[in-house]
Amino acid sequence: MSQHIPTRLYLSENELPTSWYNLRADMKEKPAPMLHPGTLKPVVSDDLAPVFCMGCIEQELDETSREIPIPDALMGFYRSFRPAPLIRANFLEKALGTPAEIYYKFEGTNTSGSHKLNSAAAQAFYAKQEGMTSLTTETGAGQWGSALSMACAFYDIKLTVFMVKVSSQQKPYRKALMETYGAKVIASPSDTTESGRKILADFPDTGGSLGCAISEAIELAVKTPNCRYVLGSVLNHVLLHQSIIGQEVKAAFDKYGVKPDVIIGCAGGGSNLGGLIAPFMGAKLRGEADYRFIAVEPASCPSFTRGKYAYDFGDTAKTTPLMKMCTLGNGYMPPPNHAGGLRYHGMNSTLSKLYKDGLLEVRTAVQNEVFDAAARFAKSEGILPAPESSHAIKAAIDEALECKKTGEKKVILFGLSGTGYFDMSAYQSYNQGTLTDHVPADEELEKGFASLPNIAR
Amino acid sequence: MSQHIPTRLYLSENELPTSWYNLRADMKEKPAPMLHPGTLKPVVSDDLAPVFCMGCIEQELDETSREIPIPDALMGFYRSFRPAPLIRANFLEKALGTPAEIYYKFEGTNTSGSHKLNSAAAQAFYAKQEGMTSLTTETGAGQWGSALSMACAFYDIKLTVFMVKVSSQQKPYRKALMETYGAKVIASPSDTTESGRKILADFPDTGGSLGCAISEAIELAVKTPNCRYVLGSVLNHVLLHQSIIGQEVKAAFDKYGVKPDVIIGCAGGGSNLGGLIAPFMGAKLRGEADYRFIAVEPASCPSFTRGKYAYDFGDTAKTTPLMKMCTLGNGYMPPPNHAGGLRYHGMNSTLSKLYKDGLLEVRTAVQNEVFDAAARFAKSEGILPAPESSHAIKAAIDEALECKKTGEKKVILFGLSGTGYFDMSAYQSYNQGTLTDHVPADEELEKGFASLPNIAR
Repeated sequence: MSQHIPTRLYLSENELPTSWYNLRADMKEKPAPMLHPGTLKPVVSDDLAPVFCMGCIEQELDETSREIPIPDALMGFYRSFRPAPLIRANFLEKALGTPAEIYYKFEGTNTSGSHKLNSAAAQAFYAKQEGMTSLTTETGAGQWGSALSMACAFYDIKLTVFMVKVSSQQKPYRKALMETYGAKVIASPSDTTESGRKILADFPDTGGSLGCAISEAIELAVKTPNCRYVLGSVLNHVLLHQSIIGQEVKAAFDKYGVKPDVIIGCAGGGSNLGGLIAPFMGAKLRGEADYRFIAVEPASCPSFTRGKYAYDFGDTAKTTPLMKMCTLGNGYMPPPNHAGGLRYHGMNSTLSKLYKDGLLEVRTAVQNEVFDAAARFAKSEGILPAPESSHAIKAAIDEALECKKTGEKKVILFGLSGTGYFDMSAYQSYNQGTLTDHVPADEELEKGFASLPNIAR
Repeated sequence: MSQHIPTRLYLSENELPTSWYNLRADMKEKPAPMLHPGTLKPVVSDDLAPVFCMGCIEQELDETSREIPIPDALMGFYRSFRPAPLIRANFLEKALGTPAEIYYKFEGTNTSGSHKLNSAAAQAFYAKQEGMTSLTTETGAGQWGSALSMACAFYDIKLTVFMVKVSSQQKPYRKALMETYGAKVIASPSDTTESGRKILADFPDTGGSLGCAISEAIELAVKTPNCRYVLGSVLNHVLLHQSIIGQEVKAAFDKYGVKPDVIIGCAGGGSNLGGLIAPFMGAKLRGEADYRFIAVEPASCPSFTRGKYAYDFGDTAKTTPLMKMCTLGNGYMPPPNHAGGLRYHGMNSTLSKLYKDGLLEVRTAVQNEVFDAAARFAKSEGILPAPESSHAIKAAIDEALECKKTGEKKVILFGLSGTGYFDMSAYQSYNQGTLTDHVPADEELEKGFASLPNIAR
């Protein structure tokens, strides 16, 4: 290949993707449908209408449109923070002494510090278009809440964020950030909702969970006029919005003539992973190209590798539709020493299906080895990564070191989904050697499985 | 002009500037020279050699070379975080309803969160090249210390950072960030140096100052073998390194056919302001184009507008060469309610000279109006700005609102020198309405002036 490949693989504004890519359209066997928890029949848009915006519902239920145009007005917002940089990790390669080429897509240059803004912008756009005046949501580590706060400030929509209590204690500055953008932040479980009060009564000392915060956010949304609930991961319309990540990478790789061999993403609810791999997985499903895909999840919240592939609720109060996914059970709570995000009990249904179909490799990592990878990356590439993203870094380094052994010149792509600037208390613990690892015993997982609905058993 | 101007004015890698621009070469009357404090004669490189790296000394004393090539090896490091985005503030313009065009150069996408990495990378590069194994420095709000920690990790150099005590208390996460990159961080004044112990004896309750931290850092550097001291602002070689900011802007504006009318930067020691305006001021001095330049400084640390234009020391212990600058006196300490950076007592000698020659307008702002501007910017443009940079935003908004009154379609450029991600305690105070303004009375300034050396009186 004669073309010089720069350190940063630029896309100009007119090369930005103008539609999202819907991976399900290229799957011969579709992911199992969402079920209504009462009737156990596939949900229709009317079932979801009291909770979600209609623009999102249509996308959630659309399994056949391959390309879904990004509205022009939203493209203007996207252009304020996209394209995200695609960077050749020259210095990491050199530090590792690997013959592999490593590239990373860096989604952390916007203030929310992560890829989450891609879907927050879209969901706030639809809410505004449909005349909503307020939104509710949950946030764990705070990336999603920050992103949605920014999007709601942009569209002048009121926002209430239920923040997992342990995170709100660990990360007071995430709260301050959301408040600066005008959001109201409530530690969850709270006494402001019925589901919150119930959980507090049962578990007065709980640090909270995403599933619990979701229950509170949905409850408030359905009780409030012109208000809807929005979710930052897990659902298929969120993955659709995040497909902009992979599409930008693919456009840039195609422009510069690069073909990745291995594509690696961290996995919590699946939004970053799903967005990054979407167009590449699509090409693979259509038989146009071959790639290896690796998902990396925390050993302390291993929904892919140790979860059941079963119908489960999205929230602890069991109010959402049922989704077939790799799940630890809606009642699962990650151990309290779990420092970063990636703490959701279940995995997006499309990704779960791809995993079960053998199209996706999955690895786990404990947090100290994840922070080791993070510090190594930071010292050579400069960027301080989010603990979440560092799961992907860990696997990328392992792949590159494997290439060093074998002499293979593989092209490795990973998703650097965000920055760790609001995770300094975790880095502090890591620096001080007080971060501990915890791999749940089977008995601990059994408690989570006990919360699965009957249909799953 | 027929060309479409995108929201982001891209430069491709081969359009990156490959040399720094030395503004002094185009000044007919040069800034007053640095003087040796003993002989009161202009310093020569031998005077500076025990303290600074030789590569920096040569640049500091060079008033005639217009273009100074950026070493190839350093360009590799620069390419890992440059070019910095140059963004059209479409949404801010709309929110203000102004006919003006507003552009900002965003230096905050690297982990240090500011432009400081431009000089940190260069200074660490020269230190490595000259066989140094360790460096010392000071940091106030923490941007410079973070940047130098990153650069020292990159070049595998040990680093000790003396951090102004009040900042290290307000910003524990800045400390954790520097430690993650391997730096040793000491709150200043400390009992680890003679100058620190002396200040502690005289002012046991002091929150410290940059001048004091500089004294400690220099003392440690000259006592340690293969160690040098590096400074993040004020000096002319630092402004030289920062000229990359303005050169990128100028290259992008030239590419897209944009000509700014007003160029605005915040001003502390002058590194961001000097770097942003350099090539434009050069063009003005050469009679090739005309621009207005506006510096914005905090009302609580007003070296330009209320300082004396006089020879002064760079540090409290009076160990540095004398520099002719706008200064509040090396003993000046900003009021304790001062939340952000921009707390240095003096202003770079070149900028001081340009101000005295009438080439630079200067405004002051109190911190609540600065945070008002910051929040307004964040809500429309998405990015949460550093309190420092928000001084420039304040003036840019004022200029744009003036255009709204007059109907003028001015092109306004400002430097968004960094992000506020590590300033959330200040934002928290602002959100809660507890941030207070303080404009020092003349008597408060007199105390600072009392510390000026005799030569200044």
